[in-house]
Amino acid sequence: MNDRSKVLKGEGFRWAEVPAERYEGTGTRFQGVTRHVLLGEGEGEGALHFITRYFEIEPGGSSALERHAHPHSVVVLRGAGKVLLEGTVHDLRPTDCVYVAPNALHQFHATGSEPLGFICIVDRERDTGRPPAEEELARIAEDPAAAALLGR
Amino acid sequence: MNDRSKVLKGEGFRWAEVPAERYEGTGTRFQGVTRHVLLGEGEGEGALHFITRYFEIEPGGSSALERHAHPHSVVVLRGAGKVLLEGTVHDLRPTDCVYVAPNALHQFHATGSEPLGFICIVDRERDTGRPPAEEELARIAEDPAAAALLGR
Repeated sequence: MNDRSKVLKGEGFRWAEVPAERYEGTGTRFQGVTRHVLLGEGEGEGALHFITRYFEIEPGGSSALERHAHPHSVVVLRGAGKVLLEGTVHDLRPTDCVYVAPNALHQFHATGSEPLGFICIVDRERDTGRPPAEEELARIAEDPAAAALLGR
Repeated sequence: MNDRSKVLKGEGFRWAEVPAERYEGTGTRFQGVTRHVLLGEGEGEGALHFITRYFEIEPGGSSALERHAHPHSVVVLRGAGKVLLEGTVHDLRPTDCVYVAPNALHQFHATGSEPLGFICIVDRERDTGRPPAEEELARIAEDPAAAALLGR
């Protein structure tokens, strides 16, 4: 097994060795999301205890609205968007960072004319996501900015 | 303690909440490097088992030439550079990714007119770096591209 160092060359936010996987997550209300596992799941990368992924959301799309026990570390690379984070809406643009705390309900939206792309790092060993209850959604949607993102 | 989610807004590859630390590493031959710990060491971020750092190397500068048992996951964000990786020189530009395997000797160089900036993710618990022996350096410098980077 080749477990040595490597360089993956990027071109237009794509990497020849990395497939673009259609991503559905485990929550609800996702649309137009691809996942690109950059480092951590390739051959010989088992020494990494965390996985470095690139997610891209097409204009108007959004990631799953979900929560899980494992935290996320996110760095935005391209586009413009918003994140619904624990019921609050924040604008996002390149180099913005997001800490998604354990069990925080979160959803990323691409709101510009180009895709929203971001690095998202997670533990190799992690739990799966859970969607919110309808009651929680209704409470979050009392905020007009959140309601607009959620289409309610 | 506030251990909830957060957004750090970036502006010109700087983040208001994040100090730029002059970085010397533990190896040799570093010059003009700052470290910005984006996520993992701030208040309430203890759930992250890994640390997301942004490093920036000024034009003509380089990171420490070192090796350590913990691997690196690197994503280039800005500038142009080269990495000396297990004795081989690779060009770097934005969106390129680098896997630095355990105990791989490595050094990043900023070779363009603007700084080389990259995300570098590591385990929270990790060992410190070690410089190479002179004998190893001499062997690496038999490659002209490596010798040029090393100034030999």
